[in-house]
Amino acid sequence: MDASGERRYPIEVLQEFSRRVFEHFGVPGEDARLASEVLAASDLRGIDSHGVARLHTYFDMLELGRINPRPELRVVRETAATATVDGDNGLGLVVGPKANRIAMDKARECGSGQVAVRNTNHFGIAGYYVLEALKEDLIGWAMTNSTKLVAPLWGAERMLGTNPIAMAFPGLEEPPVVVDMATSACAYGKVEMARRRGEPIPRGWAIDAEGRDTTDPEAMIEGGALLPLGSWRELGGHKGYGLAVLVDMLTAVLSGANWGPWAPPFALRQEIPARSVGKGIGHFFGALRIDGFLDPEEFKRQVDDWIRSFRATRPQPGTGGPLIPGDPEREAEAERRREGVPLVPAVVEELLDIARRTGIPFEA
Amino acid sequence: MDASGERRYPIEVLQEFSRRVFEHFGVPGEDARLASEVLAASDLRGIDSHGVARLHTYFDMLELGRINPRPELRVVRETAATATVDGDNGLGLVVGPKANRIAMDKARECGSGQVAVRNTNHFGIAGYYVLEALKEDLIGWAMTNSTKLVAPLWGAERMLGTNPIAMAFPGLEEPPVVVDMATSACAYGKVEMARRRGEPIPRGWAIDAEGRDTTDPEAMIEGGALLPLGSWRELGGHKGYGLAVLVDMLTAVLSGANWGPWAPPFALRQEIPARSVGKGIGHFFGALRIDGFLDPEEFKRQVDDWIRSFRATRPQPGTGGPLIPGDPEREAEAERRREGVPLVPAVVEELLDIARRTGIPFEA
Repeated sequence: MDASGERRYPIEVLQEFSRRVFEHFGVPGEDARLASEVLAASDLRGIDSHGVARLHTYFDMLELGRINPRPELRVVRETAATATVDGDNGLGLVVGPKANRIAMDKARECGSGQVAVRNTNHFGIAGYYVLEALKEDLIGWAMTNSTKLVAPLWGAERMLGTNPIAMAFPGLEEPPVVVDMATSACAYGKVEMARRRGEPIPRGWAIDAEGRDTTDPEAMIEGGALLPLGSWRELGGHKGYGLAVLVDMLTAVLSGANWGPWAPPFALRQEIPARSVGKGIGHFFGALRIDGFLDPEEFKRQVDDWIRSFRATRPQPGTGGPLIPGDPEREAEAERRREGVPLVPAVVEELLDIARRTGIPFEA
Repeated sequence: MDASGERRYPIEVLQEFSRRVFEHFGVPGEDARLASEVLAASDLRGIDSHGVARLHTYFDMLELGRINPRPELRVVRETAATATVDGDNGLGLVVGPKANRIAMDKARECGSGQVAVRNTNHFGIAGYYVLEALKEDLIGWAMTNSTKLVAPLWGAERMLGTNPIAMAFPGLEEPPVVVDMATSACAYGKVEMARRRGEPIPRGWAIDAEGRDTTDPEAMIEGGALLPLGSWRELGGHKGYGLAVLVDMLTAVLSGANWGPWAPPFALRQEIPARSVGKGIGHFFGALRIDGFLDPEEFKRQVDDWIRSFRATRPQPGTGGPLIPGDPEREAEAERRREGVPLVPAVVEELLDIARRTGIPFEA
């Protein structure tokens, strides 16, 4: 245990535990494996808020029967290169990979596959899906909408989720370029962390319940909202808002899911929306066959050249120079595979609670 | 003429003038019409920097033989749903609409069309292309790379263009939602305007030649750089950088165009890159058939509902509440169709210079 009370756990231990928890609720073996793999990808890549730290929420939802452990995915509309999938209110961690598979299969058949998904739940990290596409020489994109947390520019209330976008591009000798980003100025997890530590948050992250800029994490959490990327009009807040809109349209409006402020909550203590305008939340997956555009080896060689050119950028004073998108997550993964995944005591407590209530062993 | 020296011109006059200028250089009639239509879309929608204000630059490039007035577009690689197009160094204002047409045709055939374009030049506003797609019940996206102006986060030099992204979604009774945004914190034109007025620029727009934050427009223009959307690490500058990367990859690396800092300059006085890593600049067009996902009327009804829900957002103090993406441009278009397009004296001078040198009449 280190000074912050963190302990490290081998990823295999965490993944096996979550797999067994999903199975405990009747999730079929292969689906439970898939779901635990998506969670593990998040823990490995350092996106702590989306890994086993969320397992207790999945546990709650499954225990209360709010998520269907045995969904039957249904393609409700289809063309050669597109589809809408109904996720039958399954775990997003299961529906997501299967819908992404449909997008990839369509890409293999006709060059590009675009799949909108409704009636689903949180799907983990968007980056997982585009890394799956890379394994088959496909450029993938993945997006999801989510429970409202973000105000549109000039709005004083939560209307949009943090609506992430991910896309990845393979190198030949270099590791892939992986963009995986929420469209808000910062992650909600960072505001929660500041509150726990009793620290202020930077101006530009959030507004309070009256819509005024705030540096008090409590004021954001209690009825305030996150700001879109760009924060204010002057720094391009309308652009971050526009990106969140684009994600909401593709994932939720186009699929027939609940959009905007009506996206259903993920955690139990979140407010239930007053309206239902569709089914569940929505995802969107796209895949492009690289050889539908360029020789894949030539493409990867250019990506290598691109990466090396950007690594050679003259650095801003006081920095080590630009990173390549995906660098921090890849470094986290290497370190965590070696040293284990650090969990804070609160998360360990949650896992122990699940262990007590399910009888699945977990060693703190 | 108003106090600022602006005069207003009917859009038909500007469009006819630019059409004749393109024809003067041997651009075939239909292509000249297309190019002038794209420029006019920009002038109408209030994106003044991309309309006739750029005509003199096109004039220079055509006069020096740097742009091919009679390009023969060639599909160099193709699947049912994808293609790479070589623009034969034509005007982006001609190559862009034709490549966008290919993406739309592919979408009509198999649900989605994705087209990367190399060996092309600046294509006007990205919004033009997605509005064309809307006419056929297609959700379009359009992106382009461009001459370096933007630093990657933690970089002290220009490595990326302002790399815009546009996407549009149709309403039934409501006007469409149109996202059309550069991935930089602000437009270069705004920095130039501040310099002309002798005013400082906000912190977060730009760095100077040493990579330090600056509020001096001159310091940005003379060897500095724009910052990506999000400006700094704390406010998500890595996300704006990631978006610019994603556009660079799809438009330029995937098409075989010049990427990153090697994108060729548009204006004569801009630096010629030291390396050539592809052909010209690159665009990327996508189109999705709405009925490949959902009944189009149902989709549009939901978009109407979405728009009305967002218009009803509680406003931030001191604002009129959130706009719907596309509102400002649509309002500019209505006003300019009625009152004419305002041109500053410097732009009128440029048009008069073209008139003198080509013999095509233009009344100041």
